[in-house]
Amino acid sequence: VAERLEAPPRPTAVHRALDLIAERWTSLILREAYFGVRRFDEFQRGLGISRAILTDRLRRLVDAGIFERRPYRARPRRFEYRLTEAGLDLYPIFIAIKDWGERWVPEAGEARVRLRHRLCDHDTTARVVCAHCGEPLRAREVTYTVSRGRGR
Amino acid sequence: VAERLEAPPRPTAVHRALDLIAERWTSLILREAYFGVRRFDEFQRGLGISRAILTDRLRRLVDAGIFERRPYRARPRRFEYRLTEAGLDLYPIFIAIKDWGERWVPEAGEARVRLRHRLCDHDTTARVVCAHCGEPLRAREVTYTVSRGRGR
Repeated sequence: VAERLEAPPRPTAVHRALDLIAERWTSLILREAYFGVRRFDEFQRGLGISRAILTDRLRRLVDAGIFERRPYRARPRRFEYRLTEAGLDLYPIFIAIKDWGERWVPEAGEARVRLRHRLCDHDTTARVVCAHCGEPLRAREVTYTVSRGRGR
Repeated sequence: VAERLEAPPRPTAVHRALDLIAERWTSLILREAYFGVRRFDEFQRGLGISRAILTDRLRRLVDAGIFERRPYRARPRRFEYRLTEAGLDLYPIFIAIKDWGERWVPEAGEARVRLRHRLCDHDTTARVVCAHCGEPLRAREVTYTVSRGRGR
């Protein structure tokens, strides 16, 4: 019982996901990637990050399956970091978190990133909706059941 | 320059938000709250968390404006922790993160939480869409401009 009181339970899916992206440099690297940055030197210059930290964070993101490391030059051999499907799938969530942060933990004088949705040609913010009916998901309107997973 | 290379830049809105919710116990407390838990003892029993850690995390969540502490009994004086508008606004993002985690960092045999949307009476997952046109937000279809904030 003592142990149960000391150690947190196994990480849930939420926490496994947050563990991968919550670290500050990691979230900044992801932001750059969503802005189109792919190469080590561009990340390094854009963020003013040390090469050691950048190397470490990129490796973690590759290990997590969020980035894929691809050669783009043979001599000297150079790699770029491309978002995988998992990394791209994280993008809208990242934007939703950004919107929440700007709304609820604003910081005076902070530069704002305004997003434009090319598809509809309007400024955009993220909205999280039910994948079935398209209405916004609200805590009070969602119930849940817990089932054992079948493993994967 | 050395300092710039050592210290991460000021936290962005994304990181300020993640800082508030990414800690493991905190994300579990939020999960319980979204399931309807409000009282200290219920959080404590449900999570097997020590009273000291729970007290600390609840205080942080109150300070962050995610929970509001409200008296529900006068003698002895007891409080419950209610989600604020900011806390409720975080719910759909939390679900989107859960969906991402289950999809991309699955864990064999893990219990699954199945969500049912009472509004449409179907099982649901989160979808993040453009608040203007309702289409899914994709990194390749969003451009951005950076503008200085006016402060708040």
